[in-house]
Amino acid sequence: MDKFVRSITSRDEDFAQWYTDIVKKADMADYSSVKGCVILKPYGYAIWEMIQKDLDRRFRETGHENVYMPLFIPESLLQKEKEHVEGFAPEVAWVTHGGAEKLEERLCVRPTSETLFCEHYANTVQSYRDLPKLYNQWCSVVRWEKTTRPFLRTREFLWQEGHTAHATAEEAVEETRKMLDVYADFCREYLAIPVIKGKKTESEKFAGALETYSIESMMYDGKALQAGTSHNFGDGFARAFGIQYTDKNNELRYVHQTSWGVSTRVIGALIMVHGDDNGLVLPPVAAPVQIVIVPISTKNEAVMRKALELKDILSAKWRVFLDDGDRNPGWKFSEHEMRGVPVRLELGPRDLEAGRAVLASRDNGEKLSVSLDAVEAEAGNLMESIRRRMYAKAAALMSARTFSAASAGEFERLFDQRNVFVKAMWCGSEACERMIKEKLNVTSRNIPFEQEAVSDKCVCCGEAADKMVCWGRAY
Amino acid sequence: MDKFVRSITSRDEDFAQWYTDIVKKADMADYSSVKGCVILKPYGYAIWEMIQKDLDRRFRETGHENVYMPLFIPESLLQKEKEHVEGFAPEVAWVTHGGAEKLEERLCVRPTSETLFCEHYANTVQSYRDLPKLYNQWCSVVRWEKTTRPFLRTREFLWQEGHTAHATAEEAVEETRKMLDVYADFCREYLAIPVIKGKKTESEKFAGALETYSIESMMYDGKALQAGTSHNFGDGFARAFGIQYTDKNNELRYVHQTSWGVSTRVIGALIMVHGDDNGLVLPPVAAPVQIVIVPISTKNEAVMRKALELKDILSAKWRVFLDDGDRNPGWKFSEHEMRGVPVRLELGPRDLEAGRAVLASRDNGEKLSVSLDAVEAEAGNLMESIRRRMYAKAAALMSARTFSAASAGEFERLFDQRNVFVKAMWCGSEACERMIKEKLNVTSRNIPFEQEAVSDKCVCCGEAADKMVCWGRAY
Repeated sequence: MDKFVRSITSRDEDFAQWYTDIVKKADMADYSSVKGCVILKPYGYAIWEMIQKDLDRRFRETGHENVYMPLFIPESLLQKEKEHVEGFAPEVAWVTHGGAEKLEERLCVRPTSETLFCEHYANTVQSYRDLPKLYNQWCSVVRWEKTTRPFLRTREFLWQEGHTAHATAEEAVEETRKMLDVYADFCREYLAIPVIKGKKTESEKFAGALETYSIESMMYDGKALQAGTSHNFGDGFARAFGIQYTDKNNELRYVHQTSWGVSTRVIGALIMVHGDDNGLVLPPVAAPVQIVIVPISTKNEAVMRKALELKDILSAKWRVFLDDGDRNPGWKFSEHEMRGVPVRLELGPRDLEAGRAVLASRDNGEKLSVSLDAVEAEAGNLMESIRRRMYAKAAALMSARTFSAASAGEFERLFDQRNVFVKAMWCGSEACERMIKEKLNVTSRNIPFEQEAVSDKCVCCGEAADKMVCWGRAY
Repeated sequence: MDKFVRSITSRDEDFAQWYTDIVKKADMADYSSVKGCVILKPYGYAIWEMIQKDLDRRFRETGHENVYMPLFIPESLLQKEKEHVEGFAPEVAWVTHGGAEKLEERLCVRPTSETLFCEHYANTVQSYRDLPKLYNQWCSVVRWEKTTRPFLRTREFLWQEGHTAHATAEEAVEETRKMLDVYADFCREYLAIPVIKGKKTESEKFAGALETYSIESMMYDGKALQAGTSHNFGDGFARAFGIQYTDKNNELRYVHQTSWGVSTRVIGALIMVHGDDNGLVLPPVAAPVQIVIVPISTKNEAVMRKALELKDILSAKWRVFLDDGDRNPGWKFSEHEMRGVPVRLELGPRDLEAGRAVLASRDNGEKLSVSLDAVEAEAGNLMESIRRRMYAKAAALMSARTFSAASAGEFERLFDQRNVFVKAMWCGSEACERMIKEKLNVTSRNIPFEQEAVSDKCVCCGEAADKMVCWGRAY
């Protein structure tokens, strides 16, 4: 037990190492000989499958359908939209040979699939009756990154990408905002992570987009993680790909498009927002195992019988694991803590005699002795409390580390000591953004929808400014 | 309506064209500019998602866990097992550049992932306590095929690949057989397709396998389609990759491995076994829409009200679609027939007055007038009847086109006129297999587990033979 726990670095000591330790110790991911790519192990992949299930339901409820597009994009197709290819070409993997033969045209492994969806829409959209097209796909994409970390940045990663086509500009704007809301709700309700919704600045927006919206979350170390993005393309891609439809008056018009995505990065956020020095802490709804039953003596028949009985009862509502292995209870405690199991049920011979069991909450370590008859109801109450506490804790963290700055000096001092979010005004010039980035390694996270007039001057150049930006250091 | 139906080729006239027509008209898949790859459209992808769900449940019930391995395999890793690389290297896609940089080592896009799983097992398996490893992954794979057809053979396709490691040879054999049974049950229960279980001959087995088992199904045109395979690797890969564990006596041993896969090909089988000249015919359990409600007059308020009410009632148990669009009923009938919806509920003003509705079965076209109170129960009965009829029809087709042959002359005559399955003895020599293939374009499908002593001489060379092979022409 000691050894198991001791081998984790404290998060306050070395956050990066703590993160890597958890990924390994909680059995989430592993390295392979494929540089920059990781193996998602059963526990890590189970978390992704559950995230998929929840998001997929939200997408269906908002009218979207799943499809699957090819993995490859011909070079000529990628080049059709100028900004898009400039943004992605430097970081794509190129397939040049099929078997022993050299290909006539290089194919890139999709870094994102706008171009494929555009081509498909150009072929299939004819009339206003064909609109809107509300497609989504679950797949992996590849971007040739230099430095990589499990979940946060890998050369191949799993994600979903929604791609829609609409009759009007207004509908596309509405869709872009709607899907950002879906993502924000998902983060809050499912991951128990608060986010800041806003619009990206010109220099931070997606290659080829008119507007990019993002949700930004704060990790335990104060850094920002972009948990999801939603892009409005206007008719830019439609013009490049010739996606036109005839409207009700029989006039030819370009469609307006959007795309939006969430990736396995959010698992990185789950770890970094909620985890502690004992390991992963998972919100009950997102935990592959919600209740672990640890019999204090696996040799005691009465205890084991009752443990099995409790497992059957609790399994009707929750994902339950009865750990009847031959390791000692302490070792089991720390292992399931490492894996972030929200509730642990301990049952020993003395508990049984007293007709009671102990319920321990993973998030705050509190133990509660409850009557065996009340276990089911109490477990339910606990899950709800844990969810609420976890969200509140994450919100408090973000709130305690979010500041406003009216002057450059104040701004710099805030970022001097540690990573924080700072709300400060921006004049709209890329030069100011660049200067802040170069000087402080701080970027504009987004222009929050909820604006506050912190001052009326740009925090960098002092010129008139009416946009409040949320600034931070990012993953 | 006429136009919609007429545009489909008759399956007896031109089976290949009929197949392509259905794939397009039923909105299952579409071509893209990526040669040899297809787009899975919402309807085709929905069928795959349902197949995934059913298979995934079966895998979990047999103790397997899902993981995700990288998309790429370094050339040196692919080369570790000699037969394996010889089998796959000629048909892999090679990534040579990441962005503008040439890679130090080429990476192939996975054609199958044995090598990645082996490397992972070599890194993670140490003791008998770590065994068995029962992993599965859902992903896409790439094989650089020359000629392609949607679902049947495409350069990229979706599949699942199970990869397991066991302590003993016996356990690996057991697993290989067990998963073949899972596939056979899935085909029978879910796809309503009967299959022949058996062992592949040496020349037809998987590259690197000790033994390959397959399930073979017969399409409407009498050709065979291999619907799933399960491979026993013995300790061949373990020796090549150094996957060893210490057993209970602290002795170092090699693991024994298996792999098994089913792909989107089975959607091709669904089409070709059950489809007819009106389109797709789907078994109720595998249909994205199980009941389509077609109001005969969408303008009649009472009819629409009742149709909505029926939709609500039926949706509790089934996947229901109420087609309230503005096309005429005949057009709707033929469209949903094309898409293979098992049950159509027709409701017109006169039906409503009489307190009745019409239920039509997609598989045989029969119409049944039922009391509105009985719709729910009758729909359930119909689904069960449809399932039974579809399986029986497919089994009858296979049975009527399966023959035995004791002599070469008989054998040739059977394959002369049309595509059939022929049970005939084989001496075990590859020369005989090759001769039969060259002369008749017929291959050994498998050596069925259920053997019959058709004769005691090889159907090709006349030498002594004790293996009965199922021969056929294959997709």
